[in-house]
Parts: sequence; structure tokens; C-alpha cells
Amino acid sequence: MTTSGSPPTGRGRQAFAEIMTFPAAADATPAAEHLLDFVFADVWQRPELTRRDRRFITLPCVADADADEPLRDHVYAALNSGDVSITEMRETVLHFAVYGGWPKASRFNMVVDQEWERIHQQRGTPMPAPEPLLPLTTPSDPEERLTVGERSFRDINCLPFAPARDDPFQGAGILNFVFGEMWMRPGLGMRERRLITVACVAFQDAPYPILSHVYAALKSRDVSFGEMDELILHFAAHYGWPKASHLDRVAAEQKQRVSAEWAAEATAAS
Amino acid sequence: MTTSGSPPTGRGRQAFAEIMTFPAAADATPAAEHLLDFVFADVWQRPELTRRDRRFITLPCVADADADEPLRDHVYAALNSGDVSITEMRETVLHFAVYGGWPKASRFNMVVDQEWERIHQQRGTPMPAPEPLLPLTTPSDPEERLTVGERSFRDINCLPFAPARDDPFQGAGILNFVFGEMWMRPGLGMRERRLITVACVAFQDAPYPILSHVYAALKSRDVSFGEMDELILHFAAHYGWPKASHLDRVAAEQKQRVSAEWAAEATAAS
Amino acid sequence: MTTSGSPPTGRGRQAFAEIMTFPAAADATPAAEHLLDFVFADVWQRPELTRRDRRFITLPCVADADADEPLRDHVYAALNSGDVSITEMRETVLHFAVYGGWPKASRFNMVVDQEWERIHQQRGTPMPAPEPLLPLTTPSDPEERLTVGERSFRDINCLPFAPARDDPFQGAGILNFVFGEMWMRPGLGMRERRLITVACVAFQDAPYPILSHVYAALKSRDVSFGEMDELILHFAAHYGWPKASHLDRVAAEQKQRVSAEWAAEATAAS
Repeated sequence: MTTSGSPPTGRGRQAFAEIMTFPAAADATPAAEHLLDFVFADVWQRPELTRRDRRFITLPCVADADADEPLRDHVYAALNSGDVSITEMRETVLHFAVYGGWPKASRFNMVVDQEWERIHQQRGTPMPAPEPLLPLTTPSDPEERLTVGERSFRDINCLPFAPARDDPFQGAGILNFVFGEMWMRPGLGMRERRLITVACVAFQDAPYPILSHVYAALKSRDVSFGEMDELILHFAAHYGWPKASHLDRVAAEQKQRVSAEWAAEATAAS
Repeated sequence: MTTSGSPPTGRGRQAFAEIMTFPAAADATPAAEHLLDFVFADVWQRPELTRRDRRFITLPCVADADADEPLRDHVYAALNSGDVSITEMRETVLHFAVYGGWPKASRFNMVVDQEWERIHQQRGTPMPAPEPLLPLTTPSDPEERLTVGERSFRDINCLPFAPARDDPFQGAGILNFVFGEMWMRPGLGMRERRLITVACVAFQDAPYPILSHVYAALKSRDVSFGEMDELILHFAAHYGWPKASHLDRVAAEQKQRVSAEWAAEATAAS
Repeated sequence: MTTSGSPPTGRGRQAFAEIMTFPAAADATPAAEHLLDFVFADVWQRPELTRRDRRFITLPCVADADADEPLRDHVYAALNSGDVSITEMRETVLHFAVYGGWPKASRFNMVVDQEWERIHQQRGTPMPAPEPLLPLTTPSDPEERLTVGERSFRDINCLPFAPARDDPFQGAGILNFVFGEMWMRPGLGMRERRLITVACVAFQDAPYPILSHVYAALKSRDVSFGEMDELILHFAAHYGWPKASHLDRVAAEQKQRVSAEWAAEATAAS
């Protein structure tokens, strides 16, 4: 790391241009240059997560921050780079809506529409037709959907139980919609949903959801221990050190818990 | 609850138009359409809370999210529908300022001014004169204000004690202004203040304020147990599931606490 | 800046121990070590802002993040280092309450009480008595309070006008309390209030308050242009790059505006 006050190397601007697919603002202050170096030349370049992986951590951070330019810039960059398909981006918006809230997702979705159109205008290509919503891949019968929701709640959270149906939040919300439909939608992989979810629970930082989603991401092996550490550093750069520090503590605890469970399972299996 | 998986009935758009008093954007993506069905055709239609009640939960959520369009749209809809009077809306902004922060409230207040004017322009009716601020209904003498603040703190929080005066946050802030003046203002009912406050403490999610305001809303009987459950589902749909999940756990604990206290009081009374 | 993956230098841990007044956790991951180097050995060491200045930017960031440990650690460090007096800390909580919301401030205040007591226990010194709230230094008569509020609103915001009284948010809130009382309280300097306020409007990121408080901090000369750049870098490290990036854009605009106004004033004066 440069000692403070040293002149910017330009590494940050070069990395920014590669990641964002457009050049950084010319008039950055020394402090901003310094940050460009750290975020783009340093954090984004680390090998433990791919650039594509980092898109799925960055997008919820900028959508929650709702500073307009970073959201717009990262949506554009993710689509324009080809790292994230439009189908994956739209599923990311829906997944974010559940974990980050509908109003911010509504804005995120508008930005996706605008940037997707801008990309086609720049390329002089026609806008492709959206994929049809129907048929849904999940059952319509409420009883069946709750059953699917209970099963996917257990599978995705790596838990032996599902919550009670007879509570509007748990039943009508979590089982019927979040796990009965939303998580089941095709078009976005489970690993990507894990990355988005961990970023969202980290900024929402309600105690149990952080714990449970970090645990499930690790226990499912969708996210390795080293990838989780890297996710935390990336999150820190995009959402700040304090919440990242909390996430880091939770992750340390959950790694111990998961390691102990794996050891016990290995013993039981042998 | 009807199935979000049913064929494209446009239920979401129909419900949106009724609640928002204007049609949904024509070009919603499948993912957004899907969410439209869940939020407007499912959640908002549930009988346990009125549409008016839901306005007082939604407004703080969109004011905190500060995604411009949803805030603008929900302020317009609440006023244009007649569900919320301009006096109630302006008190909602002040109440939100205290629990959600003044910068976001400043934006909320500007949006209220703009949408209120837009409604009068659309209707071709003159803007009514604002209600005069003075005289305040609370005492001016600092000693008396603190005494009122201590009493209203105890009454509103359903607690036998008030905090120490000689602490700037507790004395100059909580007793002198928040409970000595703000909560005492006419123009917004206690039930409505409860709904706004619970939504705000849920997104701010500092541990003690969530606990104390959920407890007080239930203990005061301003919000029933079933209404609290419904508030949580509504909050989840508008602010995201992680914080709602935490609120749900806190509410479950506080329902037990309140039930036990009521049972003890009934015994003592008999 | 070290190339990614290079071994931690230990500079971060040394800097952490100096700033925080206690050692960093021994079991940090490589990603966390990397962040320690950037935040504590790099950002906190930069000369443009003092360590004391940085406390007043960090405290609102960790109080808003409401990750328990960082809040607790930074409150302890600010008091234990002697950089921030208990009187200044308590005024910081009240100021934060207004700009960041009372629920988070309530937690902040509890942490201040606990850490202040812990410091006295560690030192074996008795807890000093709190300073009495009364008498307030601001007038009690509502009319006079509004007059004081209008004047201080104009002075502090460097604006020629004050908002209308007959609006609950502007009148009962902004004029009567925020500028009629809170900003007028002794015990915290104007420069410190500027640092806290800019950090709060940056994370709340409602458009007009960011603009107006960044403008006023610069125009008043309480915060220099270079200090504002440094504030933004410090904020980025503690609250994340996206909101810092937005703040950086706003600051660039406001520097131009202020420079143009100073030039015009110089011309008019000559």
C-alpha cells in the first residue's frame, strides 16, 4: 500500500476503465484517486473471487446505497461487460427486492431498464423481447406452494425445520412467496443468489438473518471459507468497514460451527 | 390469499391502480410484474389492516428508502385517495424526522409540498392556507416541558419510569422535544404514530427501541397482536425480509411479555 | 499499495492499536488484515485531518451501521484516547439523533454510558456527575425560539432565508428545535458539528440536505476544500464507496459554487 500522500499511480484509473467499461472521471481529487487505487486496482483484482462474482456483491450494495451514479454505473458495467446477462440482472432485482426492500428495488429496476436500453442504443442493436413470466415453474395451488416453500426453506437454509405457516410473515411471506416462489425461479444460479443475499443481510444487519444466511452459504458449499472472506473485503469497500467488521465476526463464528458439523458428519459417515 | 402463480389476470396492475390512484407502468418486466402481484394484489388486500393503516407503514418505508419515485407515488396516493389528510401527512413527516432522521424527512417534506400542489393543480382547486404553528399546545417553560415529557414518556412507552434529564440526548432531546412536544402534537392519532414508529424502529433496528416500541404498541392496545403480525408482513414487502424477520422475532417475545403482564393484572384485579 | 495477496505488513495492527487504544483481534483473516492496513495504517494516518477530526466522522458512521462492536470500540477509543471529551461525546449523540434518527442514537447513547463507566472502572476513578440540563441557553418563549431558530438557520446554512414556520416539519421541527435549540447548545464546536452533519447527510443521502450541508461547511470556512476531500475518503472507508462517490460529486459542485461566490464577493468588496 502506498504511504499516504504519495502520488496516484494510475493503476486505479486503468482498473476502473476495465471493470466499469468506461473511464473514471478526469477530475478526481487525490483522496478519490487514492480510493480508486484501493477499490478497483486492489480489491477488485484479488483472485479469490471472479469479477463476475464481485458484480453480484456490488450490485446490492449500490442499489441499497441509492447514490444514483454508482448504481447506474455498475448496472451498465455488469451488462455491458457481458459478465451478467439481462435475465440474471432482472432476477437480481427481484432477489434484491425481497432482501433489500421493494422501493429501492423499484428504483434499481428502472435503472436496469434505462441502462439496458442505453447499451442497445450505443450498439445500434434492437432491444430483445423480455422473457415471458408464465408459466411459472412453481405450483399455483396454495397448499402445494407452501409445501414447496417448506422444502426449499429447509434445503436453502440447511436447516432441519421450516417456520410455522400460521403467521402472515412466515406463512404468506416467507413460505408462500420467498421460498415457495422467488428462490425457485430459474435464471439466476444458487451461488449468485447466495452472494446477493449475504450482501443484503450484511447491510440490513438484523442478527438472525446474517447468521443464518452466512451459515447456509458456507454449509451448502456454495461459497467457500476463502470466498466468504473475500466477499467481506469486497463488501467493506462498497458498504463500509463497520458493517463488514460485524459480518467478519459472524462469519468467523459460522466457519467454526460449519467445520464442527462437517467433522461430526465425517465421523458419523465413517 | 390468491395465487401469484395464476394466469396473467393483471390482478397486480388492477390492485396497483386502486391503491396508487394511477396505473402501473405499462412496461413492467416479468420479475417486476411478479412482485406487483405479491405486493399489491396479495399483501395490500389482506383484511387485518385497512388500506389507510397500510399508508402509515408504507410512507416511512419509502421515505427511508429514498428511492424518489416510490416516495413520490405513495405520498400522492395517500393524499389523492383521501386516506390521509394533509395535516396527518405533515405530522407524519415530523414524526418520521425524529425516528428516521431529518435529512430524509427534509426530502419527504419537499415531496409532500410538490405532490399536494400537483393534486390541487390536477383538480383545479386552490391550495388551502397552512395551519398556523403557534400557539403550541405544550408548555413553554423548560421545567414544565420536561415534566410533560417525563409523563408522556411514561404513558406512551407504558413504562413506570422516565430517563434522567441531565444527559443531552435524554434531556434536551427525548424529554424536552420528542415526548415533551412532538408526540403531544394534535393532528395525528396515537394509533397512526404507533404504526409509523414501529416501521421506523424496524428499519433503524437498534435493539432497545424496537423492543420498547413494539411492546408499547401492543401493551397500549393501540395495535392488536394480529395487526402487529400484519404490520410485519407489510413491512417485509416494503423494506425487505431480513429486518422484518428480526421484527417478527421481537414481536413474538413482546407478545408473550404483554400476555403475561395482562394475565398478572387480571389476577391482581380479581 | 501492495499488490493483492501480499502478506500483511503489520502496519495495520500497529496503527489500529494506536487509534483504538487496544490491540486488533489476533485471528483476522488475510482479507481483514488487508482492510486493517488500508483503513488504519493508510486512511487514518493521512495528514489533512487530525485523528480527533476523524473521530467525529467515524462515530456517526458506526452509529448508523449499528454493528455493535465497531460502535462500542470507537466510542471507547474516542473517550479513552482523550481526543473527545464526555461532554462533546454526549452532544455528538444528540446531534446524531437529529441527523441519523433517534432509535440508532438511543443505542449510541447507551453505548456511551457503558463505555464511559468501563473506562472509569479500568482507571479506578469515580464517575463524574453529569452536567445539569437546565437552564437551557436558548429562549423558552415559542416566538423567541422561532426567531432564534430562523437566525441560526440562516447563519449555519449560509442562506439569506429561513423556511416557513407554518409547517410542522419546518416550524415545530427545524426552526423550533433543530436550529432554535440543538445547534445552539454549548459543549460541541461548530467545526465538529459540521463533520458529524456531513457524515450523516452523506449516509442518509437525501439530495438537498447533502448539497446544503456540504455547501455550508465549505462556505462558512469551518471545513476547507482539502479537508472536505479527506472527509470523503474517511467516510468511504467507514461507510462505503457508493455513498462516498455521490458525496464526492456533490462536493465538487459545491466547491465550484463557493469559489464563484467568494470571487464575486471579493470583486464587490474591492
